[in-house]
Amino acid sequence: MTEPPTESSEDRLIAKYFMPLATSSGAFGLLDDAAVLTPPPGCDLVLKTDAIIGGVHFFPDDPADTVAQKALRVNISDLAAKGATPLGCLLSLGMPVGVSESWLAAFSDGLGADIARFNCPLFGGDTVRTPDAIMVSITVIGTVPVGKMVRRAGATPGDHIFVTGSIGDAALGLNLRKDPSVRTRWNLSNAEHDFLAQRYLIPEPRIAIAKTLGEFASAAMDVSDGLVGDLQKLCRASGVSAEVEAASVPLSAAARKALGAEPALIEILLTNGDDYEVLAAVPPGRLMAFLAAASKAGVPVTDIGVIAEGVDAPHFVQDGRVLKFARRSFSHF
Amino acid sequence: MTEPPTESSEDRLIAKYFMPLATSSGAFGLLDDAAVLTPPPGCDLVLKTDAIIGGVHFFPDDPADTVAQKALRVNISDLAAKGATPLGCLLSLGMPVGVSESWLAAFSDGLGADIARFNCPLFGGDTVRTPDAIMVSITVIGTVPVGKMVRRAGATPGDHIFVTGSIGDAALGLNLRKDPSVRTRWNLSNAEHDFLAQRYLIPEPRIAIAKTLGEFASAAMDVSDGLVGDLQKLCRASGVSAEVEAASVPLSAAARKALGAEPALIEILLTNGDDYEVLAAVPPGRLMAFLAAASKAGVPVTDIGVIAEGVDAPHFVQDGRVLKFARRSFSHF
Repeated sequence: MTEPPTESSEDRLIAKYFMPLATSSGAFGLLDDAAVLTPPPGCDLVLKTDAIIGGVHFFPDDPADTVAQKALRVNISDLAAKGATPLGCLLSLGMPVGVSESWLAAFSDGLGADIARFNCPLFGGDTVRTPDAIMVSITVIGTVPVGKMVRRAGATPGDHIFVTGSIGDAALGLNLRKDPSVRTRWNLSNAEHDFLAQRYLIPEPRIAIAKTLGEFASAAMDVSDGLVGDLQKLCRASGVSAEVEAASVPLSAAARKALGAEPALIEILLTNGDDYEVLAAVPPGRLMAFLAAASKAGVPVTDIGVIAEGVDAPHFVQDGRVLKFARRSFSHF
Repeated sequence: MTEPPTESSEDRLIAKYFMPLATSSGAFGLLDDAAVLTPPPGCDLVLKTDAIIGGVHFFPDDPADTVAQKALRVNISDLAAKGATPLGCLLSLGMPVGVSESWLAAFSDGLGADIARFNCPLFGGDTVRTPDAIMVSITVIGTVPVGKMVRRAGATPGDHIFVTGSIGDAALGLNLRKDPSVRTRWNLSNAEHDFLAQRYLIPEPRIAIAKTLGEFASAAMDVSDGLVGDLQKLCRASGVSAEVEAASVPLSAAARKALGAEPALIEILLTNGDDYEVLAAVPPGRLMAFLAAASKAGVPVTDIGVIAEGVDAPHFVQDGRVLKFARRSFSHF
């Protein structure tokens, strides 16, 4: 009479590869329909969802661990820009026939490493079949002190505009991936090539500066669709304009070398996105404190210009002229 | 000098079709990177994500409004089974080239109607290109009084097992969709055919019974992958077994007619899923109060068996014999 309980292969895959990532007690080891979360006292929750698709946001032959990490990090990057601390995440993973279990194992390893690093445990997930492409949609939940989420709105004329790290590396990395021959034209060393390729493959979200932004920024957002278009979005939300000195935009040594070889790359650097750096406005009276806190957090920040009155699109000035761009930012449609 | 701010077409689509659904003040009209949510006092949050894929969970030519509604409702169904009240949702929508703006308009209409009906405003979203299939991933957030989420674990031997509504309709609706000729074999009227087709197309989540479950159920889950497999999951989480009288499982008039014409359909009815009814265990001492509350809530519930000791898979008994199933539940892998 005894028929032992049997597991579906979907249940088996979830138990093997995702249960270990669901370390929060409220996730019930992914063995319930839903997770429960008791909100930390004194906090607002910050909510964000972003999806990445094979063949669109990453190459289908990218390593599975970096695919998982990119999917999580593009979301963590938004939390960082909002001044938030990661609390947990939910995953929807779609896989076509032909994705191997070793792919899934590597995906889960990469995700697990990042979940540990960013302290962002898995609250739940769904694995589904897709006809064709790999699809990874992640929702992250973060916390900020009540009322302290850093908005896009809030920048005021006179505020200084900062970006973290360097801009445009991922755009060059993508171009190198699509056409390896440009490497010679840009005169890149192996190390420079690999640096740019890596910047495209997995972003480094600036979570270390989140609390500093919450304390000092009048407005902030992450740079995902290109600095020019994203600054325009921040300005529009704040009802202001901006003046940026293009030469002030921080570039990596590799990007500077490529730009030296091909000056027209300036448009790609400033508009193609995938940077996952933070763009922030800081009131003049708080500049010194902001710079000290960023330095203490170990995050390089560069002053690229000022918020201005008006509703014009931000001006990016190079050699005294306002740059014109064919397309200001990445758009899927 | 004035260059008017320009919007990307992605921004335009979001503003036109999704901003109206983001009615919570913390969603900032979808004009920020993330939403902020001040958790209601005295509540835990219940978190769930589920994705549906064109060609897998729905037919690519299904009406766009019902696609949106199915995507939201499969998630709302989980909240209902956990005793939770919807608070809000986040959407990832992937669309291949060739999806028209009228499709998107209908999708947004359908989603908007359900967001209003279930009081579950949009907190955020992401629209992306996919190579092939439409992909809709939704994360829902609900609330329960602190500590009161209804778990899968908690059923005790002697508890009665209830299901809401009727089981198996969607499975028959899917079969009718895949092979219209079975309609004649099952001897269905137009109305019966349409009823079953509709049950597959959009589920009716049992949100009306959520509070009753929170008050009286020892364990509950929604029936999405088939009653047999889902009861097995509930039993395994609770460390118990179960005895179900197959003849007690509530069937609609249409399903009864089909089953009369083709008795082998019992396996499809009990294992194919897409029911989005609630399965709940209720202690014997609370039966009368549970039935009264369900009746007051207007949700039909049927007693189908009892929780038993042991770790066997639940027995579904028909004419004194334990039914054997080729496959206990739906699995993607």
